Amino acid sequence: MRAQIVAIAVSVLAQAASAAVEAKNVIYVIPDGWGPASQTLARDLQGLIESGTNRTNPIIGKLAVDDMVNGLVRTYSANRLITDSAAGGTALATGHKTNNGWVGVTPDRRPVGSILEAAKLAGLGTGLVSTTAITHATPGAYSAHTVDRNNQNLIAEQQLGRVHPLGSVVDVLLGGGRCNFLPQGAEGSCREDDIDLYAYAEELGWSVARNRSEFDEFERGLGAARLPILGNFASGDMRLEIDRREVQDEPSLLEMSQTAVQALHRATHCKDKGYFVMIESAKLDTSGHAGDVPAHAVGTWHFNEVMKWLSEWIDEHPDTILISSSDHETGGLTLVGNYDPTPAFEARHTANFLANKWNGRPEDADSRQFLVDEILPYYALTDAMEGEIEELLETDDMEDTLTMMLSQRVGAEWSTGGHSAIDVTLFSYAAGDKRRELQADLARNWNNIEIPRYIEEVLGLDMDSVTELLQEAAEEDDSWLGDRLD
Amino acid sequence: MRAQIVAIAVSVLAQAASAAVEAKNVIYVIPDGWGPASQTLARDLQGLIESGTNRTNPIIGKLAVDDMVNGLVRTYSANRLITDSAAGGTALATGHKTNNGWVGVTPDRRPVGSILEAAKLAGLGTGLVSTTAITHATPGAYSAHTVDRNNQNLIAEQQLGRVHPLGSVVDVLLGGGRCNFLPQGAEGSCREDDIDLYAYAEELGWSVARNRSEFDEFERGLGAARLPILGNFASGDMRLEIDRREVQDEPSLLEMSQTAVQALHRATHCKDKGYFVMIESAKLDTSGHAGDVPAHAVGTWHFNEVMKWLSEWIDEHPDTILISSSDHETGGLTLVGNYDPTPAFEARHTANFLANKWNGRPEDADSRQFLVDEILPYYALTDAMEGEIEELLETDDMEDTLTMMLSQRVGAEWSTGGHSAIDVTLFSYAAGDKRRELQADLARNWNNIEIPRYIEEVLGLDMDSVTELLQEAAEEDDSWLGDRLD
Repeated sequence: MRAQIVAIAVSVLAQAASAAVEAKNVIYVIPDGWGPASQTLARDLQGLIESGTNRTNPIIGKLAVDDMVNGLVRTYSANRLITDSAAGGTALATGHKTNNGWVGVTPDRRPVGSILEAAKLAGLGTGLVSTTAITHATPGAYSAHTVDRNNQNLIAEQQLGRVHPLGSVVDVLLGGGRCNFLPQGAEGSCREDDIDLYAYAEELGWSVARNRSEFDEFERGLGAARLPILGNFASGDMRLEIDRREVQDEPSLLEMSQTAVQALHRATHCKDKGYFVMIESAKLDTSGHAGDVPAHAVGTWHFNEVMKWLSEWIDEHPDTILISSSDHETGGLTLVGNYDPTPAFEARHTANFLANKWNGRPEDADSRQFLVDEILPYYALTDAMEGEIEELLETDDMEDTLTMMLSQRVGAEWSTGGHSAIDVTLFSYAAGDKRRELQADLARNWNNIEIPRYIEEVLGLDMDSVTELLQEAAEEDDSWLGDRLD
Repeated sequence: MRAQIVAIAVSVLAQAASAAVEAKNVIYVIPDGWGPASQTLARDLQGLIESGTNRTNPIIGKLAVDDMVNGLVRTYSANRLITDSAAGGTALATGHKTNNGWVGVTPDRRPVGSILEAAKLAGLGTGLVSTTAITHATPGAYSAHTVDRNNQNLIAEQQLGRVHPLGSVVDVLLGGGRCNFLPQGAEGSCREDDIDLYAYAEELGWSVARNRSEFDEFERGLGAARLPILGNFASGDMRLEIDRREVQDEPSLLEMSQTAVQALHRATHCKDKGYFVMIESAKLDTSGHAGDVPAHAVGTWHFNEVMKWLSEWIDEHPDTILISSSDHETGGLTLVGNYDPTPAFEARHTANFLANKWNGRPEDADSRQFLVDEILPYYALTDAMEGEIEELLETDDMEDTLTMMLSQRVGAEWSTGGHSAIDVTLFSYAAGDKRRELQADLARNWNNIEIPRYIEEVLGLDMDSVTELLQEAAEEDDSWLGDRLD
């Protein structure tokens, strides 16, 4: 098999990431752990709702990002063909491959500058929005440098500039991860020191929100949302959209994105320099890991809603461009056999939410009755057969058993509880003539590390000089990079 | 789940397939049964061969079509979310959804005109190239109309114009399917009548080749390849590339594509009207059905080789554009767990070829010795453990057992023996300024039925008037559409 193949490799000269497009602002959206089949699933479900099986009209079911498809991205990391979010985020943020688990640092433990840091140093506004902890690997890769993604307390300190050689590089931080900002002893803290990052932030003039109602304060008055902004709306991860829209105790990704973009716009629109913001639809990854079909579909719809709002924003603010790609696929989703997502229509919660509800049922509750009344209707399993009910009553893992039953009904096969290697879709949007130029620029398969180089070109930034500054600092003292955890 | 979703559907106005690009010639390539993960697999294998695990250089492993990625295509048929090749081919050829199994006919049994037929009626040259029987569903959809894809004898007659209301619409037919052209009684015939389509073709002046050496005659003299051309190089399906390159008794898809394009070019380059040709890399579907990793990877490399040659041809003939997409994915391939295709390096045949070799071993052969000497080394399983050897010696399905063992080593999961619903990749190539225009035109997710409408626009054709002609003919007598087979 070796013999004939080298000849078909393309030129060994690296492709330049030269950009025909100039823009003042770049918005990058990462649907974490989301692959091509995710969109097919969500679109087919949408199409079935719109029209039943009569789908001869070609646009039935079409979702917003279907009109933004532009290319693909290959995602392998420095040490694995299947990346994790730390190496994937580092590639998309800094243009460097690293090992799985490492954040903003190459495998030789050297920090590398991100597109967000380069933007900040060049005088642009910067923002990070995520539905996971804002200290998690993906937002971390844009704003912090550590040899272990689990150093989330350290990432929080770096994000506020407390231990970052460049000071604070982020003007907007919106997501989960409250526990990483609270000193030990405070309720809900996961820190092991006395550092109170909210006090630190407030002293430096940050606008801070720790819950939904404080977020709503941002929304009510321009003053409240003065940069820099720190908002944490969950202790760790935020809710998946299918749960959130029922419970309504957290802002949605769309709401956080609107706040971030509008705040950065207000702060920069009279200036020469614009902004860079990364928005992560993080919990798609969670529904992929869980193999939770309705959660993944509703999350995909919400990602499409966010992208739709951003494209409409760009129509009004054509000095802005939107690029989006996942960091990797999660779950190894395929749609096979008698595939038909119709049975997922009626689900109203994640299987994880319902498993927690199950585990917390009253001690005196009739288990079978509770299952039939309080669990199955919320996961589109009212048609469960007697044998399935028995299985559910006996399972040690209610979440897993629920997701498997519904996936089987739907024809969704999840081949892994982890990530997969498939190329992920690259989306783009720009207004006016810029749109076709951007599409022509981006139409190809990209190595993930090429993407920030393109943005660098669009915004006229210089990541390498940031890398130099960071590495100079690290040569003096690299304790701020943290240690590998066991 | 129903409540909030209709709002995110995009405008219900169908998107116009308007083209900024004009071209004299269009080449459409269909890697049948091939999805996004197929390219990831082949690229990773290429990358590992080039560089081992040191893959920090972003272009390592990159294959030709990686630079041609432009969009995605959604593939569902009129009656299933998972299409077959007949409905998929009909969509790509005619712009109409139909039921699985139907060829060039809508579900109400009405024939619909194809882009190839419209090209022919407008005076362009036309060609079909495939590594399956040229009478198979995909080439059939461009050139024939029947309510059952299994009416391959009828499709052959239509392709030569014997029973087609428009006469012969194809100038070049290259592929397998010899048996459908031979009268019953002739060696290797699968017809149930006395129609000798080779005699019929030769009488009408077709250049005919029935084997590799007659194909080579085409190559040696321009005269021999005078249009129209009919070449069948296998009784039914042609070999998969991994087998073909060892056995060398059939031309490759690349060789057939070169012959077709060059012959059509010679016949049209002094005229105003150019050509349309569809080239199908058909056996990728076969390796997907089989779950055969090395066969799928080598087939993907060969598809990349064909696309590379076509792009170089277009550099020399910039009045030509190339568009390519699969009709659907096959196998539900995901790359998971400890995914690493390295073990597939050394395979030199399909598992199917080796299973046939196994089944045909000499009666007096020592089975274990034969397995170890004649099978395992050719399928990269020289490291088989004792338990695996026992399993192979006892299996009823040698092909399946071989493919499963190698897939497991590689981390390739095939979730189905059939097709899947995932969107497939859209590729394009054009030369000079036309390239960026084409990329901007094509950058989105396409419903498969929109693709021929775009080509119609590029070439200035009219499929609907062909449909009218065909339906007029069918209203008089629709026996030429054949019957549904059991």
